Parts: sequence; structure tokens; C-alpha cells
Amino acid sequence: MREAYHEQLEELADQLAGMCGMAGTAMELATRALLESDLALAEQVIGDDSKIDDARASCEEHAYALLALQAPVATDLRSVLAAIHAAESLERMGDLALHIAKAARRRHPEPVLPEQVKGYFAQMGKLALELARKAQQAIETQDVALAKQLEDDDDEMDDLHRHLFTVIMDRDWPHGVAAAVDVTLLGRFYERFADHSVSVAKRVVFIKTGQLPGTETHDDV
Amino acid sequence: MREAYHEQLEELADQLAGMCGMAGTAMELATRALLESDLALAEQVIGDDSKIDDARASCEEHAYALLALQAPVATDLRSVLAAIHAAESLERMGDLALHIAKAARRRHPEPVLPEQVKGYFAQMGKLALELARKAQQAIETQDVALAKQLEDDDDEMDDLHRHLFTVIMDRDWPHGVAAAVDVTLLGRFYERFADHSVSVAKRVVFIKTGQLPGTETHDDV
Repeated sequence: MREAYHEQLEELADQLAGMCGMAGTAMELATRALLESDLALAEQVIGDDSKIDDARASCEEHAYALLALQAPVATDLRSVLAAIHAAESLERMGDLALHIAKAARRRHPEPVLPEQVKGYFAQMGKLALELARKAQQAIETQDVALAKQLEDDDDEMDDLHRHLFTVIMDRDWPHGVAAAVDVTLLGRFYERFADHSVSVAKRVVFIKTGQLPGTETHDDV
Repeated sequence: MREAYHEQLEELADQLAGMCGMAGTAMELATRALLESDLALAEQVIGDDSKIDDARASCEEHAYALLALQAPVATDLRSVLAAIHAAESLERMGDLALHIAKAARRRHPEPVLPEQVKGYFAQMGKLALELARKAQQAIETQDVALAKQLEDDDDEMDDLHRHLFTVIMDRDWPHGVAAAVDVTLLGRFYERFADHSVSVAKRVVFIKTGQLPGTETHDDV
């Protein structure tokens, strides 16, 4: 039974890693749709979001089955619950990419972003993709050091997000209120995506070390 | 064992109901801090947030213990997992109230909100409190009809949120970009709070009916 359990837990980890891949790709495409006002890419992200939702439902079902059939205890139990939490964060990451794609579609053929801030979003998009990829690797390798690296990347995202705010809030912002509102929300979507990636990685660390993630609040603006 | 299990499940429901109360109170005070630029209230919300975080950790520990000791299956298992999900949403609701309180503190003694939009926030705050209170009642009474009512309240919140956007986006918005950015983020915090309340209520419905909540995305802006 222990062996069956560990096989099933590995399958669950594979599903989570797959979800990381999907969330990362969604974010990559959504960022391109945003920067290049590419409607086809935006539609692709919007159409594909249900696949991430389905993957989450499938992860949950798998985890439920594992709990019901194997009745794991102690660290094993916590591992399964960590996977359920991680799946929830990953679905949310998909939703955030979806919001970005929808913003690109809503303003099409007009660009959502003033040229002045495109560089920030290019960097935030790159960082978001890296975070999703590292979370995927952390799940695949159970590498605790890698999982902890994500917090540094998240700090970098927070810095970008803060700088972006100083640009919007500058008295000389010439693009008006509507553009500022779009940029504010879009910035927040990237920042939340990064937070959820860290949360996924922390759950991975937990599976390995048994150390519960803190309850600190990350998304202050 | 079944009896012990059901007693423990009731205790877990009591903990969740208590968290609803805490999140509702946090939102009520944060809204007053925001509308009245009341620093003491803002500080109270900020100081009390760790209690909601602790309550969530305690709920999770309780749920883990229940799973480990009782190894519930089928609907019972799903009930415990629903409680874990609900606790996560409730902690997040506390975080959102915290963000609102922090915004009030950051701008103090200046008001964060232009007079023009205070009415929207007064209504959103009232609705958010009602949502938290109804989620609490739904948990306490396991009243499925009540749980479903929350979706109507959430629609009302979405309407308010949409109207608020039309006000900010109006060419004649006279309060500048910085105020628009504040109002944008604050509006989103209320809207997210409402979504999480619905999510808590849906989990309650699930415990009663065994019907899994949908995976639809609520927080489009």
C-alpha cells in the first residue's frame, strides 16, 4: 500500500507540474497579447483557461481519491493537502493570465499600455514566466533550495510593481486616468501571479521538510 | 467513532463561523476607517489581522487532525476538505480588509476617497458585511437557500463595482490619477471580498448537497 500511495503521490505531483506549465504558458501568451495588441493570442489564452480549471478539478479528484483510499497520516497526509492548496493557487494563476488577455482583447485594436510602461510589463511577464517554470521544476525535483529562490524572484517582482506605481503616480503622467487604471490593475495581476507561484513553491518545500508555510501577507500595494 | 467525527465536524464549522464573524468585523471597521479617515480604527484592523491568520491555521490543524484520526471517506471527507478551502478564503477576506485599512492609514490625515465616490464605498462596505454575516449564518444553519442568496448579493456588488468604474473612467473625473488608482484598487478589494464570501457559501452548499462548486471565474473587471 505504501508503494501504491507513493506512486499516486508522484502522479499528483506530475499533474501539478503540468498545471505550472499551463499557467506559465498562459502568462507568456497573455503578456505577448498585451504588449503586441495581438487579438489571436488573447483569444487563445481566454479559450484555454478552462483547461487549467479542468486540471485543477482533476487534481482535486485525484487527491480526494488518494485520501479516501489510502487514508494517509502525518507527513503523507500533509503532502496531499499541500497538493490541493497548490492546485488552487495554480488555477488562480491561470485566472490572472486570463484577466490580462481579456484586457488586451477589450482595448483591441488600441494598445492597453502606453509605450512608457511597456518595458515594465515585458520584465514582469518574463519574471512571471520564470516563476511558473521554477515552481514546476521545484515540484519535479523537490529541490528545496530552488523553491526558496522563488522568494527572491518575487522580491524583484515587488520592486518592479512599486516602480510602476511611482511612474503612474507621477504628476507628469501624460496618459490620463483610464490608462492609469488599466495599468494599475494589470500590474496587480502580475504581482498576484508571482505571489501565488511562491505559495506553490512553499507548499513544495513543506512536502519535503514538513515546515508549514507562514501566513504573512504578500500583496500589499 | 461516527459520533466523535460529527462532533469534531461541528467544532470545525463553529471555527469557520467564528472566522466569518472576524472577517466581517474587520471589513466593517476598515470601511469606517476609510470613510471617516479614522486612524485608530485602521490600526485596530491592522493589529487584529494576525488573529484571523491564527484562526485559519487552527482550522487547518483541526481539519488535519480530523482526517488523520477519523480517516473520513465520501461526503464526510469532502466536508472536511470544504472546510479547509473555506478557511483559506476567509483568511484572504481578512487580508482584503487589512489592505483597505492600510490604505486609510497611508493617506491619513488626508481622506483616501473623493467625496464623489464615498457613497459607493459605503454601499460596498455594507454589502460586504452582509455577505460575511450571511456566510456565517449559512455555516451555522447549513441553510442551502441562504447560501445561494449570496450569489445575488455578489451580483449587486459587481454592479456597484462596475458603476464605480464608469465614474472613474469618466472624462470629467476631476480628482486626478492618484485618487483614481486608489479607488481602483480599493474597489477591487471589496469585489474580491464578496467573491470569497460566495466561495465560502458554495463550500457550505457542497457539504450539504455533495455538489461541487463550479470553477467559473468571478473577478473580471
